[in-house]
Amino acid sequence: MGLPLVIRFSEENFRVIGFDIDETKVQKLNDGESYLRHIPDDDIKAAAKNGFTATSDWTRISDCDAILICVPTPLGPHKEPDLQYIRGTLDSIKPNLREGQLLILESTSYPGTTEEELVPVAKERGFTVGENFFVGYSPEREDPGNTKFTIKDIPKVVSGITKNCQEVTEILYSSIVKKTVPVSSTRVAEMTKLLENIHRAVNIGLVNELKMVADKMNIDIFEVIDAAATKPFGFTSYYPGPGLGGHCIPIDPFYLTWKAREYGIHTRFIELAGEINASMPEWVVGKSSEALAKKGKNMQGAKVLILGVAYKKNIDDIRETPAFRIIELLQEKKAKVDYHDPYVQNLHRTREYDFQMSSVNLSEETLAEYDLVIIVTDHDAFDYELIEKEAKLIVDTRGRLNISNNVFKA
Amino acid sequence: MGLPLVIRFSEENFRVIGFDIDETKVQKLNDGESYLRHIPDDDIKAAAKNGFTATSDWTRISDCDAILICVPTPLGPHKEPDLQYIRGTLDSIKPNLREGQLLILESTSYPGTTEEELVPVAKERGFTVGENFFVGYSPEREDPGNTKFTIKDIPKVVSGITKNCQEVTEILYSSIVKKTVPVSSTRVAEMTKLLENIHRAVNIGLVNELKMVADKMNIDIFEVIDAAATKPFGFTSYYPGPGLGGHCIPIDPFYLTWKAREYGIHTRFIELAGEINASMPEWVVGKSSEALAKKGKNMQGAKVLILGVAYKKNIDDIRETPAFRIIELLQEKKAKVDYHDPYVQNLHRTREYDFQMSSVNLSEETLAEYDLVIIVTDHDAFDYELIEKEAKLIVDTRGRLNISNNVFKA
Repeated sequence: MGLPLVIRFSEENFRVIGFDIDETKVQKLNDGESYLRHIPDDDIKAAAKNGFTATSDWTRISDCDAILICVPTPLGPHKEPDLQYIRGTLDSIKPNLREGQLLILESTSYPGTTEEELVPVAKERGFTVGENFFVGYSPEREDPGNTKFTIKDIPKVVSGITKNCQEVTEILYSSIVKKTVPVSSTRVAEMTKLLENIHRAVNIGLVNELKMVADKMNIDIFEVIDAAATKPFGFTSYYPGPGLGGHCIPIDPFYLTWKAREYGIHTRFIELAGEINASMPEWVVGKSSEALAKKGKNMQGAKVLILGVAYKKNIDDIRETPAFRIIELLQEKKAKVDYHDPYVQNLHRTREYDFQMSSVNLSEETLAEYDLVIIVTDHDAFDYELIEKEAKLIVDTRGRLNISNNVFKA
Repeated sequence: MGLPLVIRFSEENFRVIGFDIDETKVQKLNDGESYLRHIPDDDIKAAAKNGFTATSDWTRISDCDAILICVPTPLGPHKEPDLQYIRGTLDSIKPNLREGQLLILESTSYPGTTEEELVPVAKERGFTVGENFFVGYSPEREDPGNTKFTIKDIPKVVSGITKNCQEVTEILYSSIVKKTVPVSSTRVAEMTKLLENIHRAVNIGLVNELKMVADKMNIDIFEVIDAAATKPFGFTSYYPGPGLGGHCIPIDPFYLTWKAREYGIHTRFIELAGEINASMPEWVVGKSSEALAKKGKNMQGAKVLILGVAYKKNIDDIRETPAFRIIELLQEKKAKVDYHDPYVQNLHRTREYDFQMSSVNLSEETLAEYDLVIIVTDHDAFDYELIEKEAKLIVDTRGRLNISNNVFKA
């Protein structure tokens, strides 16, 4: 999320310094190269013309008037918030802070994070927040792969520890977005971002559960959703799938769950959604075994092709992708698994998985070689007509194809 | 739902017969009078000019080419579907059915109802469904109080037992709506209506849970929702309240829950939403006691005014309204409870409640008499400025007012 902000601020002639602990990224950026597929090199070069430089030298923090922290906020092994990147960043910048600066957190976190993590750092440096140092929170709002909205067009929620903090935060973002949305406290802004993602996680959980119910009743949930979507009020369509992915929706809601426990309360919708969404890979693999069985085949020894491993369509991001769990489950059942994804050439090692796999080519011949093709990510670039014509058996987790003798939905 | 259809079909010059077992309604309609607040007498008179008559004489069923069943489908005491009105209607019309008729169910019910309840009746009469008798399902879609959409503008999902049944059903509704949405089976159509209402029940349950979480964190959930609503994609706002009401949202989802058990599966989101939504009156009364306590008062002996008893704003419908449970809980705590609702002059006896109460007048003087005013239904007709000025203490369950010394949200 940092890089799109760099580019947007540079477009408005801000002189931007990009801080990163990853020397490779710093070097690439200073060479005019992007490290994200959806950001072209030309954008980096244009930013450089307006004074953008990247660095890993924290002393340069003192050159900045505003400091925006855009680091990841993942979950630890027990679904607890892992604030190590926020805390590490604060440790690095703390000695280099100076009076008059504006320090803003953009990372998603539980209500209270800005007050509990940022404010103490300012106080330890002897600043008076709201008078000679300013602290704000403004959550990032991005939809990877969505080309309809750019940063400029997406209203930005802004907040501050004091009224002064809120005002300077709003002024800063007003230069890069058409509309700012000031709220009364950093806690409200933190909760806003969580609500947005909880809403998605729960709605996807709901349709995933209803998919399983409808399946038992021999009803195609995708047809039901499309019919319901014709209601002009009171309904918004969400689609089921093979499970949640990405660095937001599967993770962020549990930040609230964790914080709520401090107050002695449970977030039952979040936990139910997490449980159901996380069980989708098992369900998909179960339905795949059933589909094979209908053709008189076993999963053991079957050749299976996974179409799409990115966590959602038309992007190259594999963070938290359910494809990995599906591959793992298939391998446990002794299937021979390959994958094809035009945006993901090789699977690199992640914290949880280490597949030694590369994307296979997709052609009439290769498609026909597999006993089963599972559509996990429905990239628009796929030739669905070819896939439907050549594959012996398809399990479609995205409702892209119509049910037929050879096409099952899961 | 029957009456709006009568009027709409009459507008298109269909000769409509309205069947009802309630002689009072039949008499009223034949006298050119409406029995629903949002339908004016003039609409009934206009329909009569086009040949509309009401009757309780079931032999006249044989005069009809198409028969639309629009009876209630409530829940029994154990949240099981109560199909007595569908079955009673079918018993009454069965001897009067004839070849060539189209029989359509409009009532909300679980997937399989049309197949399991309507088709056997046709078969018992010796008809061949799809050849000399036709059976369809087309769920009603209405939003009481919503003046933006009329029947004509709301796309209508249509389905039939056979392809022929689907086609005649579609042809019939095409005469009264701009857009029909044909689906592949009556089961899909039945599930579509349930999905629409499950979606609402679950989303309202989610925000009701988050309201309680936010409250503990001293965050105003209404401010959070309004901020999240500025996101131009991926978020739809639903608002918390004092609990669900009406004859659809609190009831319909459990039709699926019941049917799912037949297949050995649970509908956990529906049950969680039901539980949380049903607990809202208790929570509201708890917050009301807390608010009174902050003013040094007890609920016991307190004078409490309920503003709005209709289940939602700007309508007179009190079916399943959470206001009744709130009144009951307040009375259990020995509060002296009155209510004001411009659309509900008296509370008549219902299956669950029997309050001997009439709407009190609302004025500066009366407002000031109460220790506590609870906004349960936020009718637009209320003078909120006056209420905020005169009431000693307000608990607002609809987020209509801003929090202040005298205004608490619940």
